[in-house]
Amino acid sequence: MKRRIALISTGGTIEKTYDELSGVLANQVSVLDFMLATLELRGVAIQRVSLMNKDSLEMSAEEHTLIAETATRMSATLSGVVVVHGTDRLAISGERCCELIGTPASPIVFTGAMRPYELRSTDALQNLTEALLAVQVVPPGVYVAMHNQVLQFPGVVKDRDNGTFVKAPR
Amino acid sequence: MKRRIALISTGGTIEKTYDELSGVLANQVSVLDFMLATLELRGVAIQRVSLMNKDSLEMSAEEHTLIAETATRMSATLSGVVVVHGTDRLAISGERCCELIGTPASPIVFTGAMRPYELRSTDALQNLTEALLAVQVVPPGVYVAMHNQVLQFPGVVKDRDNGTFVKAPR
Amino acid sequence: MKRRIALISTGGTIEKTYDELSGVLANQVSVLDFMLATLELRGVAIQRVSLMNKDSLEMSAEEHTLIAETATRMSATLSGVVVVHGTDRLAISGERCCELIGTPASPIVFTGAMRPYELRSTDALQNLTEALLAVQVVPPGVYVAMHNQVLQFPGVVKDRDNGTFVKAPR
Amino acid sequence: MKRRIALISTGGTIEKTYDELSGVLANQVSVLDFMLATLELRGVAIQRVSLMNKDSLEMSAEEHTLIAETATRMSATLSGVVVVHGTDRLAISGERCCELIGTPASPIVFTGAMRPYELRSTDALQNLTEALLAVQVVPPGVYVAMHNQVLQFPGVVKDRDNGTFVKAPR
Repeated sequence: MKRRIALISTGGTIEKTYDELSGVLANQVSVLDFMLATLELRGVAIQRVSLMNKDSLEMSAEEHTLIAETATRMSATLSGVVVVHGTDRLAISGERCCELIGTPASPIVFTGAMRPYELRSTDALQNLTEALLAVQVVPPGVYVAMHNQVLQFPGVVKDRDNGTFVKAPR
Repeated sequence: MKRRIALISTGGTIEKTYDELSGVLANQVSVLDFMLATLELRGVAIQRVSLMNKDSLEMSAEEHTLIAETATRMSATLSGVVVVHGTDRLAISGERCCELIGTPASPIVFTGAMRPYELRSTDALQNLTEALLAVQVVPPGVYVAMHNQVLQFPGVVKDRDNGTFVKAPR
Repeated sequence: MKRRIALISTGGTIEKTYDELSGVLANQVSVLDFMLATLELRGVAIQRVSLMNKDSLEMSAEEHTLIAETATRMSATLSGVVVVHGTDRLAISGERCCELIGTPASPIVFTGAMRPYELRSTDALQNLTEALLAVQVVPPGVYVAMHNQVLQFPGVVKDRDNGTFVKAPR
Repeated sequence: MKRRIALISTGGTIEKTYDELSGVLANQVSVLDFMLATLELRGVAIQRVSLMNKDSLEMSAEEHTLIAETATRMSATLSGVVVVHGTDRLAISGERCCELIGTPASPIVFTGAMRPYELRSTDALQNLTEALLAVQVVPPGVYVAMHNQVLQFPGVVKDRDNGTFVKAPR
């Protein structure tokens, strides 16, 4: 039987699409459904929640709290929660979850991408695939799954030099 | 620090490539290195083992045993083992591992694909991504990771009607 | 104003799709409409004709004649005709057109592919793109457009060693 | 025997690549060689000329003249010239060629793209394919080949509403 999980989209690089008129990549429409259509999902039944579609550099403190509250609330009734998020401020929403609830009832797994799904070469599908698998096998907690790693909050930070996430040195 | 894992290739649909002269897909050269080059691997350091490149329908009992012996032996000294295998007889090699060793020292995760990596639309990258993540987070045991599921041997069988793996009904 | 052209599909490698159960590539359903959907077509308005979906090695003499008759008949009322065809016997249908009509009223351009559109790496889109452009700019005649070349019948043969078409040596 | 043609790159949307740090698409390195590697080119032998790598909105009058002079000069000794150019100011360079030389010794074919090659969905390969075919089959003159059309200068303008090129109304 498939695990019921929530997939919360908040925007970020992973969801940016190309606007021909302006010639830039921006958060316009969600591409998550296109991404999901390319995957074979036998383990989870997904409940899609489109919370916002923003570059995380533009998120307010209230929006980080809204994301954390939505994730922790849904983790209480489902088998897990995946949150798609811009990487620049992903760690803020992750830490906010820990502050709100400590250990959630079921795993909350954040993910995102360094290169939009719209690009020919992208880490978007890899990262979404990893988050949708990790949410089934890790114990309750708050995590980021990306680039072949699952790291647990608190204490995860973006390593800007290497374009990925790492555990913060103590 | 990256976990050291073995990646054992044995062939199967996932590795089939197109031969223009004959117009058929066959196991000729390994495409695993091309697949790995498209992934961001921060969690594992891979030791590649090219054991064979066969359609699993053509594997002998000795070859299944060779695969199981190689996997269980490498699991003793590394943090985990991923085995790329044809899906038709994948379960035979998986069960053989269990018979040989019961619970290995580190996780052994089988994977494969229903559609070759060479195809425009394929489950190959999803499945390899999942196996390379699962091997880091599951407890020691023998598994198949594919199609958004991690299933533990013994008792996993191919569901031919649905083109995936399931736990065998008791 | 767009030129009205016919696009006649007859099958061939270009249209082969993967059958998961048997694990082979075969002419099952036409993928031409998927290919067309990825192109920006401002020059032509296409009238689709699905004549057959066969490996050309299996075409009978009557079928080659049917293809040639359909192409020459449609060239009389439209601005051009593109025929998608298996490469092995493409030259037979091309020569048949010349025998039937000599010089048609508007260009008839054959094309095909050495690697199916279904593959990640394929010449299918390049060849279709070339045929759809050539049909607008060449003078009336019978041609094959493929691999960055436009060659005129009679006297075009498949070069099996190099996997392409060439003018036959006199 | 292959026709010898020049392929002059000047930049534009077609060549933009993604910069992870800034999160924008910009003209950084040429992707033309990657594009060429995916095509089967049996008709032309290419002489690559990297003239500049700029968004055409940033081209000076001198640069348009440099492009036109280079193209017309090379058309005198080769079988044709293809120029990859940003679409916003492509028509300026095209008209400059006509002013300089009227009818060149061999065809000069401009092309570009509305969506960078780096994107999963792009017109870049279609347009380059068309330019590399058109240059072999059109009579000497100055053209743009793009979106399944070959249009001859003078009198070609960008249709911004439809994101393509059209002949200017008289």
